[in-house]
Amino acid sequence: MLTFERRFNPKIGKKSKEFIKSSFEKMVEEKNSNNIGYYTLPNNTEKLLKNIEEYIKNNKFLQENKISNIVVIGIGGSSLGTKAIDAILEHKKEKNIDISFLENCDPIAINKILKKIQKSSTIFIVISKSGTTIETTSIFKYILKRFDIKLDSKDTDKLIAITDEDSPLWEFANKYDITKFCIPKNVGGRFSVLSAVGLVPLAIMGYDVKSIIKGADKIEKDFFNEKAIHLLEKAYFYYKQGKNKPINVLFSYSSQFDYFNQWYVQLWGESLGKFDETHKKVGLTPVGLVGSVDQHSFLQLVMQGPEDKTLTFIKIEDFENKKQIPDITLDNITGVNYINNHTFNELINAQCMATMESVSEAGIPTDIITIDKLNEENLGYLIYYYELLTSSVGIMLNINTYDQPGVEFGKKKLVKKFVKEN
Amino acid sequence: MLTFERRFNPKIGKKSKEFIKSSFEKMVEEKNSNNIGYYTLPNNTEKLLKNIEEYIKNNKFLQENKISNIVVIGIGGSSLGTKAIDAILEHKKEKNIDISFLENCDPIAINKILKKIQKSSTIFIVISKSGTTIETTSIFKYILKRFDIKLDSKDTDKLIAITDEDSPLWEFANKYDITKFCIPKNVGGRFSVLSAVGLVPLAIMGYDVKSIIKGADKIEKDFFNEKAIHLLEKAYFYYKQGKNKPINVLFSYSSQFDYFNQWYVQLWGESLGKFDETHKKVGLTPVGLVGSVDQHSFLQLVMQGPEDKTLTFIKIEDFENKKQIPDITLDNITGVNYINNHTFNELINAQCMATMESVSEAGIPTDIITIDKLNEENLGYLIYYYELLTSSVGIMLNINTYDQPGVEFGKKKLVKKFVKEN
Repeated sequence: MLTFERRFNPKIGKKSKEFIKSSFEKMVEEKNSNNIGYYTLPNNTEKLLKNIEEYIKNNKFLQENKISNIVVIGIGGSSLGTKAIDAILEHKKEKNIDISFLENCDPIAINKILKKIQKSSTIFIVISKSGTTIETTSIFKYILKRFDIKLDSKDTDKLIAITDEDSPLWEFANKYDITKFCIPKNVGGRFSVLSAVGLVPLAIMGYDVKSIIKGADKIEKDFFNEKAIHLLEKAYFYYKQGKNKPINVLFSYSSQFDYFNQWYVQLWGESLGKFDETHKKVGLTPVGLVGSVDQHSFLQLVMQGPEDKTLTFIKIEDFENKKQIPDITLDNITGVNYINNHTFNELINAQCMATMESVSEAGIPTDIITIDKLNEENLGYLIYYYELLTSSVGIMLNINTYDQPGVEFGKKKLVKKFVKEN
Repeated sequence: MLTFERRFNPKIGKKSKEFIKSSFEKMVEEKNSNNIGYYTLPNNTEKLLKNIEEYIKNNKFLQENKISNIVVIGIGGSSLGTKAIDAILEHKKEKNIDISFLENCDPIAINKILKKIQKSSTIFIVISKSGTTIETTSIFKYILKRFDIKLDSKDTDKLIAITDEDSPLWEFANKYDITKFCIPKNVGGRFSVLSAVGLVPLAIMGYDVKSIIKGADKIEKDFFNEKAIHLLEKAYFYYKQGKNKPINVLFSYSSQFDYFNQWYVQLWGESLGKFDETHKKVGLTPVGLVGSVDQHSFLQLVMQGPEDKTLTFIKIEDFENKKQIPDITLDNITGVNYINNHTFNELINAQCMATMESVSEAGIPTDIITIDKLNEENLGYLIYYYELLTSSVGIMLNINTYDQPGVEFGKKKLVKKFVKEN
């Protein structure tokens, strides 16, 4: 279960109420238009889940427990969501299958990962929405060569392609009879973790993907039945305060949330940094922090730097771990004895609350999302909550939340660098 | 070797020249006053390096190659710099000693790290400037209990304490005859990587710490001999543009630079987010990105979001790795063949340049730091460069760059939460 508590005043008068209402109606329209596919993923995965189940049942390597590694070749929206969920739930995983992500064309990083990988015990999953991502195709070629994977042999049993139907990668997979799962055309990369992009690797690793969907479905129903007005009010506050508070910090009190923060940064930054309809540059800058670590790095700036930030805290009520700070007195360091016999769980949460209170008392808008336990259902809920929040702010800003035209310039320049050379 | 190139105009007129000159003089004063100790670390490590060498020579576990792990218990400035250097140079390390960092009181994170650790093959290094950091002392107590370390036995041969002279931790180490190294009183946590804080663990792992110092010494000499005016001009630009461009992005094109980015975030954020002398909140917000990965997450916001950012690119000229994208044509995905037979090194650097050019053409101030190779000397240079840049901007903003009063409020609240309870 997730609970939401805010310590800012969204100042909802009659006019803003109407604005929020009309923004909500636009979202309903957006959903019903079927142009934006992520909205309906929670109600739309039955067939996909069945296909994944069948894949797992029919894969003899998996059935014979011969797979100990999954390598995902994919970048940005093709990897961040899966990374986030795996990092948060890894300590509870029952199957003994690890996952690695090949994203960057940094040769040292590629080597670090691949030197631990054996062909015989690995499933390689190539993920690219367009099917032509330069990082992904380049690394995939390298893997074919390094592991001597023959496309006209049984080797292809170890490959999976996840991509848009009819993309070049789709056609490639077709030709060589490689297992493939499609990304619905109307689901953007950064909104795709609840599609095959996330569910296929997560299910193979043994995560309860049905519960992820169940959690997403819960907030989907709440939201569209107008029972999550707090979400719209928060979106309204961010929209309204955007000029004075252009930086939105997510301060997650758990080391495991580092990748979730990164997923949030992509979702928020890439969706909301846009030309609006008057061709004005708008947007909100996301920052991801991990507590308590970043109390020692970023908190000073929040407390006494420019008042240009909002903070959202994430707190895990119950880490399901009873480790205690032992009742030991270190000679000369007695000033910290007050924490003896308390659990680390208590300490990190007290740090979260103490920081939130002091930030809030300094006049900085804060809110807190409390997650009772780390499990699939709660993560599905949290992910879909952030997707809805992003869509809400996008609708209010009157921008296209779902495209990314600004990244094309660099891509064109890149091609020119090589095509000119040759 | 590092080279610096900028694509912004710092607009240095006569008045700004004088301002820069007087800021430089204030830095010379600050250095000569001996109040700010990091300035002189590059000239001041001879005795420390000798002590470290002796420690290594006299430690029978190290001499007999029985140590395969170092566990650093420390947070913020006590861990980030070491983490950064190790992550960047790890692939070149000759000794087979790994390092882990226990920072956060997240019980899951603590467990993940400690389950791989054996007492017999580990040196535990406790680092805390004040000697009373709550995360550090709590985790240290837990380690004493978990590994049954007896303070009145030979077990203490496996412990090192790094802290301020006369701190509670110092006295504690004294009492139990634990090996200790001191952090000079005038060296702040986030400026301490070139002191015992970084050099002790890095030297034990086999890194060439003398070369780290040599690199720092090089830019120290250049700077104070007025041969690095580009650094002051960049600081001036950031200072002058701070209101319009309050966000300074470091975009490092190498996966290994993730922790370096985090080190930069602490250094920049905690040093420059302050009340100025008129009690006005000032500061610059640091953001760390990894390329090309974050082209797929943050670049859209940079290109078409608010014009509130500057970007510094870091490029590694030579990764010393010749891995190539093989000359393979993937049926139906022929559009990416232009990259075949090129190295990943070429690809990632071309991505860096293509992105920098497109960002720069969009009117966003950018500069680029090119590092010829990843080695100790270059990293020492880069670290000290960033420390000087931080000091320069701080001097210009007329703030105390070296304190962090804003984090005390939360600390007090934390104690109250437990003391009230008991």
